[in-house]
Amino acid sequence: MKLLITGGAGFIGARLARTLLARGTLAGRAIEQLVLADLVPPGAELLADARVQPRVGALREQCAALRHERFDGVFHLASAVSAECETDFDLGLASNLDTTRALLDALRHAGNAPRFVFASSIAVYGSDPALPLPPVVRDDTLPTPQSSYGIHKFVCEQLVADYTRKGFIDGRSVRLMTVAVRPGRPNAAASSFVSGIIREPLAGLAAVCPVAPETALAVASPARTVEGLIAACEAEREAFGGRTALNLPALTVRVQDMLDALEAVAGSAARQRVRFAPDEAIARMVGGWPARFEPGRSRRLRLQPDTDFRSIVLQYIEDHPASITTRRQA
Amino acid sequence: MKLLITGGAGFIGARLARTLLARGTLAGRAIEQLVLADLVPPGAELLADARVQPRVGALREQCAALRHERFDGVFHLASAVSAECETDFDLGLASNLDTTRALLDALRHAGNAPRFVFASSIAVYGSDPALPLPPVVRDDTLPTPQSSYGIHKFVCEQLVADYTRKGFIDGRSVRLMTVAVRPGRPNAAASSFVSGIIREPLAGLAAVCPVAPETALAVASPARTVEGLIAACEAEREAFGGRTALNLPALTVRVQDMLDALEAVAGSAARQRVRFAPDEAIARMVGGWPARFEPGRSRRLRLQPDTDFRSIVLQYIEDHPASITTRRQA
Repeated sequence: MKLLITGGAGFIGARLARTLLARGTLAGRAIEQLVLADLVPPGAELLADARVQPRVGALREQCAALRHERFDGVFHLASAVSAECETDFDLGLASNLDTTRALLDALRHAGNAPRFVFASSIAVYGSDPALPLPPVVRDDTLPTPQSSYGIHKFVCEQLVADYTRKGFIDGRSVRLMTVAVRPGRPNAAASSFVSGIIREPLAGLAAVCPVAPETALAVASPARTVEGLIAACEAEREAFGGRTALNLPALTVRVQDMLDALEAVAGSAARQRVRFAPDEAIARMVGGWPARFEPGRSRRLRLQPDTDFRSIVLQYIEDHPASITTRRQA
Repeated sequence: MKLLITGGAGFIGARLARTLLARGTLAGRAIEQLVLADLVPPGAELLADARVQPRVGALREQCAALRHERFDGVFHLASAVSAECETDFDLGLASNLDTTRALLDALRHAGNAPRFVFASSIAVYGSDPALPLPPVVRDDTLPTPQSSYGIHKFVCEQLVADYTRKGFIDGRSVRLMTVAVRPGRPNAAASSFVSGIIREPLAGLAAVCPVAPETALAVASPARTVEGLIAACEAEREAFGGRTALNLPALTVRVQDMLDALEAVAGSAARQRVRFAPDEAIARMVGGWPARFEPGRSRRLRLQPDTDFRSIVLQYIEDHPASITTRRQA
């Protein structure tokens, strides 16, 4: 079978690609070709695999050619991130809404209704002061996005649902939790600090936390996130349950719990590298994201959240040994 | 003040225009200019008013000029209807999504953040078999649209909310109930029969009802609908309550209640002109629309539903005397 991952050179996209290649199959069929579309080429390890075909360039411009190509499955992860969309309104709409629509139209034109996993986000939920979120969010809780990024994700969920209803694709939208711990450098996502306050101290660097220690977050490890994307693709239509988006499993942690886990793994020196410097804009955006989810449809797909944050820190250390300079002191 | 009504020559648009002109003011300010944009010119009565300025042509093409014009208030009613969108997927997206976005961008460019009333629809609700609607729908019930038209309306609600959050417009989305009784001819809306089974018998004509007599519907008279649009425009931001859409008041009636009212007003001969001929596609679409709403935010705006369907029939007869050939026999 032939698969496409948009954003295939990104952190989640590349991890998904590696996981799929290691499995060798998806929904019981051998993966023969894996197209990775992104602004940059994927890493050397992926390029070395004969099944991988990189497509470098803006996704929207790639869509004309995609109209004449058939895929058995598509994972659509490419997206402008939250702070970027807040800063540049038009860029956000073009990158997220217009590009997704161009991709959906390309697949519709190709005509074989592939399975299509859309990576939506917990950011569709925001706390409108006039319509506060319930303490525990369910799959059928009304999203009231409070960021352009959240609006784009929610709008694209609707388009995915309608293209699916019309039989143009077999779409499955899943809402990713905040993924931690991401490697690399901080980015323009409002959630960037969630990884930063673990990653930088482990690398011996200082980190700034823009929200209060008691801020609760719904997080998932990279491994659990990739597991969710694959499960959404493999699920039978009926098992997925409806055409609306499904919330992937969430581990609820407070920032201070995360720092406790960091300290338990890497010692108090690591923790002390994190400085609190409140940023009102980020705190408002992040504070509006729900932290507690009722596992509903995700549990019916047999997906489980991470067990605790310590295991997430250990997963990061295992996956990125070269980035770790701080070891447990004790 | 200067106002714009898109779809201003349509049934609701023209009625809204007449009502606004008769009032002379909106939100306490005198209406000096009323621009009516539509594919066709408005009726002679409206054209005769010096405050009315018709703009004939596709709204999307008018948007370039609108970037350089400031309005104090905009009522956006122009839309392709439900059955049209089901038949022509691209036309629906172009008419509803792309045109609304072009209009929002024009107003953003004009730069004065006008009050913007978006006529959304009860059609955002649909019964996904996997996620059935609750028996009574609230303002915070998750819409799961089951038609492209419903998807477009729900998507545009999100865009209106985000352009409002960014301060580009002061948007208020209101979901219209099925409006009855509409004059004129049947159209491509799935709800067209709701007016047809009253209007045609009153004109001495036969009518076909494509759904079962026990089908319940959430309806509102043209007068109540226009009242809701005006109230949404006049409400203070806080009174409107959030940036998500508000459900306008609904009168819940079954088709047989509607025919009882017809008979009470126009005699059994009128009722006997209605023939039941089930149409599965229409029945499925209409059957998925909720019939019962909890009055929430609309009640806080002091809006009330119609008292009964008989008064709706009488309103139609009073408003359209030339269309009535059948009088009460008794």
